[in-house]
Amino acid sequence: MSRQDALKQRAQSVFPRGIYGHLGTRAMPENFPQFFTSAKGVRMTDVDGKEYIDYMCAYGLNLFGYGDEEINNAFVEQMRKTDTLTGVSPVMVEFAERFTGIVSHADWAVFVKNGTDATTLGAMIARAHTKREKIIIAEGAYHGMAAWSSASPGVTAGEKAGRISCTYNDVESLERAVMEAGDDLAAIFATPFKHDVFIDQAEPDPIYARRARDLCDKTGALLVVDDVRAGFKLARDCSWSVVGVEPDLSAWGKCIANGHPISALLGSDTAREAAAKVRYTGSFWFQSGPMAAGLVTLDRIMNTPYLENIQSLGHSLREGMAKVAQKNGVGLRQTGPVTMAMFLFDDDPDLRKGYRFCAEMVSRGVYMHPFHNMFISDALTLDDVVQTLDAADEAFRALAAAELAPNTRLAALTA
Amino acid sequence: MSRQDALKQRAQSVFPRGIYGHLGTRAMPENFPQFFTSAKGVRMTDVDGKEYIDYMCAYGLNLFGYGDEEINNAFVEQMRKTDTLTGVSPVMVEFAERFTGIVSHADWAVFVKNGTDATTLGAMIARAHTKREKIIIAEGAYHGMAAWSSASPGVTAGEKAGRISCTYNDVESLERAVMEAGDDLAAIFATPFKHDVFIDQAEPDPIYARRARDLCDKTGALLVVDDVRAGFKLARDCSWSVVGVEPDLSAWGKCIANGHPISALLGSDTAREAAAKVRYTGSFWFQSGPMAAGLVTLDRIMNTPYLENIQSLGHSLREGMAKVAQKNGVGLRQTGPVTMAMFLFDDDPDLRKGYRFCAEMVSRGVYMHPFHNMFISDALTLDDVVQTLDAADEAFRALAAAELAPNTRLAALTA
Repeated sequence: MSRQDALKQRAQSVFPRGIYGHLGTRAMPENFPQFFTSAKGVRMTDVDGKEYIDYMCAYGLNLFGYGDEEINNAFVEQMRKTDTLTGVSPVMVEFAERFTGIVSHADWAVFVKNGTDATTLGAMIARAHTKREKIIIAEGAYHGMAAWSSASPGVTAGEKAGRISCTYNDVESLERAVMEAGDDLAAIFATPFKHDVFIDQAEPDPIYARRARDLCDKTGALLVVDDVRAGFKLARDCSWSVVGVEPDLSAWGKCIANGHPISALLGSDTAREAAAKVRYTGSFWFQSGPMAAGLVTLDRIMNTPYLENIQSLGHSLREGMAKVAQKNGVGLRQTGPVTMAMFLFDDDPDLRKGYRFCAEMVSRGVYMHPFHNMFISDALTLDDVVQTLDAADEAFRALAAAELAPNTRLAALTA
Repeated sequence: MSRQDALKQRAQSVFPRGIYGHLGTRAMPENFPQFFTSAKGVRMTDVDGKEYIDYMCAYGLNLFGYGDEEINNAFVEQMRKTDTLTGVSPVMVEFAERFTGIVSHADWAVFVKNGTDATTLGAMIARAHTKREKIIIAEGAYHGMAAWSSASPGVTAGEKAGRISCTYNDVESLERAVMEAGDDLAAIFATPFKHDVFIDQAEPDPIYARRARDLCDKTGALLVVDDVRAGFKLARDCSWSVVGVEPDLSAWGKCIANGHPISALLGSDTAREAAAKVRYTGSFWFQSGPMAAGLVTLDRIMNTPYLENIQSLGHSLREGMAKVAQKNGVGLRQTGPVTMAMFLFDDDPDLRKGYRFCAEMVSRGVYMHPFHNMFISDALTLDDVVQTLDAADEAFRALAAAELAPNTRLAALTA
């Protein structure tokens, strides 16, 4: 038995049914590795010694690659002085000053751990600010795992009661949702672009974004941009700055300390009073190590061409993939921003083509995701892209030649 | 202006109203420091260079003191290999095996970040397991900051609808609550002992604990012990092992990696199927550094007399404090387990005596809390206790001599 399989078997016993959440592999192609011993830059090495170029970047955590020495050293240096204690480190104030100085709409910050903490706090503050309950969420959008936005078993009807659904980028459906909320609208939530799983991504329609701002201004509701996933991958500001719209609240996480655990809710003065009233805290929320790492990360964001780099690399990957797919007669759809690539195949309702393609890629040392957007980090190089395209050429050829059985793995997601 | 005051002023601007949550100092005695530059063992140093013996241990995070070299080195070594990536480290399986091997009722684990994540997951799993909604929570008990258990502005009526209240240690009130739930009881939650703020602590009445187990068995509801705060401070097992009661689920956090950010929900096989169905994940939940730190922490817990040490130190502190208080004619109440001391004063409804005492202690380099339980860590020594008692002697004398004005600081907690 491989070390990989042995660990998967042990995990079955000590977790409810193996590794859970987005790192569960029951619903991934069969040959996907789950256990890794090390990671550096864009490469990770699994427990059986195989190396992969990783296009998931820990699901968007490492904007500057794994194990960045400068950022990690800042973390360790702070941790050796103090990490979490009965009080806070001055670095917390510095990080808040720096972060709110970068994000145009932001006058204040609250630091939390999970991205879900940030979006949930946004929902609570909007409700406290407006003294209303309804929150508009686009169908299929992910705003974290808390009860107010989740569809999980164990969530009660009362917890879900505040949600109203709309269709992303569809102005009419947004207006209908606002109408449905009547005088009870607390907030409109929006991801910066449509990055749902399983379907093509979509850039935000500026008319939709401006209408959302407009409807919030008219009703007194708060506009919340959930930038947890896309933050700093599209702009050096809140992601809706690219369509000229400023929210009242924005939720951040994942990459703001290049993978060290910290998330944030940023807010404008409009919401300050409510934010001061809502009660929130967490044992680890004041951990200063990630804040020290975050300061270096924000400096890197403001003072290096990382954004232009990942955009340029993303373009190279997209153009290369399109060429290689076409050469092999495969209909490949690449959607959304180039820095957050999504690959789906034409005529592939059960994703059997996507699964086979990703399985072929993984066996060639390139880790790509069959139904979730991917991420380009600043540690990627053109050589890595060339290696990826070589692997893709072979993978497309194998895919074109294969008899594909129905995809039975996906069922594990809902079972 | 002191560096302390300058930082407080800057914090007012970049946070909704200064540092928030349990590390806000608006409701603490006026001279309490908020910003610190370093911490080691039981001592922390504030930004103006003053040193304090800290009886809060970061609110129970560091069972073995601040900056433990062995534990921190294990963290750094793992972080340098990989921390959070697109997959998991084998250390996650090892930590789950070790942890479930220590806690008698536990067959499986789910690792999360916040203590609140662990208690919330417990509530969701109980609801999914029973397909019912009602959760019994003792009045005044703290089970984290999520909507299902919180009283914050911004929580909706629907989110609160599932709660039923009872009185801790009062069997009749528990039975009434179960009756009130009718056929809709999902869970009984319990802290291992009564550790509410502002009031005397109380050890668990074994009859109450056994009746809770009994009522869960009869109704099919799950018993959840919230050991986030008290875990491993009373026993080398779930804290209700001391009264002979095993829960179905237990929530852990704070000290399980000596302050590195990780919490856990542990469960028995009864709840495994529901735990497998409920959907949960977090970007940072698979961070392996805290798991490596946690392995060393659990080894220390199982293989050193830390528990006997903190109990013995706690007894010395309690006996010494009683003597010094008596000598100075002050009526001091010390309640709850000695490892989690709580000091309240007789005839002190607005806590003016407690506030003055803590202010006097802080000015003498001892950080104690006027209305929250404190924590003894294994890094404390008898010399530290002697230094504390010397300070207390002076503080009690100052208190006895003082004219005490009404306590206006507490109002900040609810404002």
